[in-house]
Amino acid sequence: MAQLRVHNLAVSIDGFATGEGRTVEAPFGHAGGRLMSWFFPTRTFVAMAGHEDEAVGEGARGVDDAFAAATEIGIGAEIMGRGKFGPQTGPWQDHEWQGWWGPEPPFHTPVVVLTHHPRPDLVLGGTTFTFRDLAPAEALALAAELADGRDVRLGGGPTTVRAFLEADLVDLLHVVVVPIVLGRGVRLWDGLEGLEDRFDVETTASPTGVVHQVWTRRR
Amino acid sequence: MAQLRVHNLAVSIDGFATGEGRTVEAPFGHAGGRLMSWFFPTRTFVAMAGHEDEAVGEGARGVDDAFAAATEIGIGAEIMGRGKFGPQTGPWQDHEWQGWWGPEPPFHTPVVVLTHHPRPDLVLGGTTFTFRDLAPAEALALAAELADGRDVRLGGGPTTVRAFLEADLVDLLHVVVVPIVLGRGVRLWDGLEGLEDRFDVETTASPTGVVHQVWTRRR
Repeated sequence: MAQLRVHNLAVSIDGFATGEGRTVEAPFGHAGGRLMSWFFPTRTFVAMAGHEDEAVGEGARGVDDAFAAATEIGIGAEIMGRGKFGPQTGPWQDHEWQGWWGPEPPFHTPVVVLTHHPRPDLVLGGTTFTFRDLAPAEALALAAELADGRDVRLGGGPTTVRAFLEADLVDLLHVVVVPIVLGRGVRLWDGLEGLEDRFDVETTASPTGVVHQVWTRRR
Repeated sequence: MAQLRVHNLAVSIDGFATGEGRTVEAPFGHAGGRLMSWFFPTRTFVAMAGHEDEAVGEGARGVDDAFAAATEIGIGAEIMGRGKFGPQTGPWQDHEWQGWWGPEPPFHTPVVVLTHHPRPDLVLGGTTFTFRDLAPAEALALAAELADGRDVRLGGGPTTVRAFLEADLVDLLHVVVVPIVLGRGVRLWDGLEGLEDRFDVETTASPTGVVHQVWTRRR
């Protein structure tokens, strides 16, 4: 049975998974790169970005990378909220915006983008984006079919992850708690009181200062 | 120079340091004992409670106890908000309520209780409670004097800790992040955006599942 997995979802110590004021230049709003600064030096990110960085070389293979790398393994499709695809809201003005990732997005699988506003499929390199207005359970059914026996990644953002957690559809939730107080933005945990009753939780502190927390749904 | 230190302040993963609906029977409201369940088996708590528990004997001496025990060391006075002293609000109806701790409270030092409502000093065993309507800096000045060269513990609750953090008076903040989603109550981190700019942060995961985070003010 295909699992629905969330990986590398960073939250501030005060529970925000993205900042306020998201734009094309600032995908995380006023949070800037601070929520993901543990991720950029990892080998997984360096390989994903497709170039070696002078500062980090091939990238680090420590605790952070061990968790980061898990996001790639056994995934056959991704579901993302529209906010992860782009900062726009409302009907698509045109189809010029093709996501943040350039001509070769790092997914290399079908991606179901949840949006109330229709748009034709978009093929970029090895990735096909399919835009649909679906409830969480329907989206998972479609993505599981597209994944062809492999798992489905739930890519975010926080509002989308929250909706799938509320619907009890998430099998694995990997959050990265970053020791910053963001103060404003989109909260991950709102409306999820008692979530721990449905999950086992394992916690690991990384020498880089972040905490990896793996929530595994009880069976 | 006396330091102002916060120890053993537990917060849920969604940032609440106490629950909703506090009463005499439920000092943490709907959170019950869940925020402090890491603390009860420690040697520090067993010694503080003044009895050995059949289940835990003398108490555990692991990571949680190492952090818990630090709260006792070098402290000459405590400051607490009125909410830590009792669940009542508004003018004191009488002086029958003498705190949660019985005839021998675990402080054994002067304790400054911050309240807008006057009340005479209360001596219980080795502890003297002094009730004052003071701003954070004034409270610290009084407590430092009472501490006679030792440090001052800021005992909580979260609203009080937040006020002292906003006033930049806290030298050390030890928080314990508990992997539960509390959903409602009093948030610790609100209004403290960018707090990390003034602190160095160290994080340790305990095998019991909680995370100890030590925020040390930069000098």
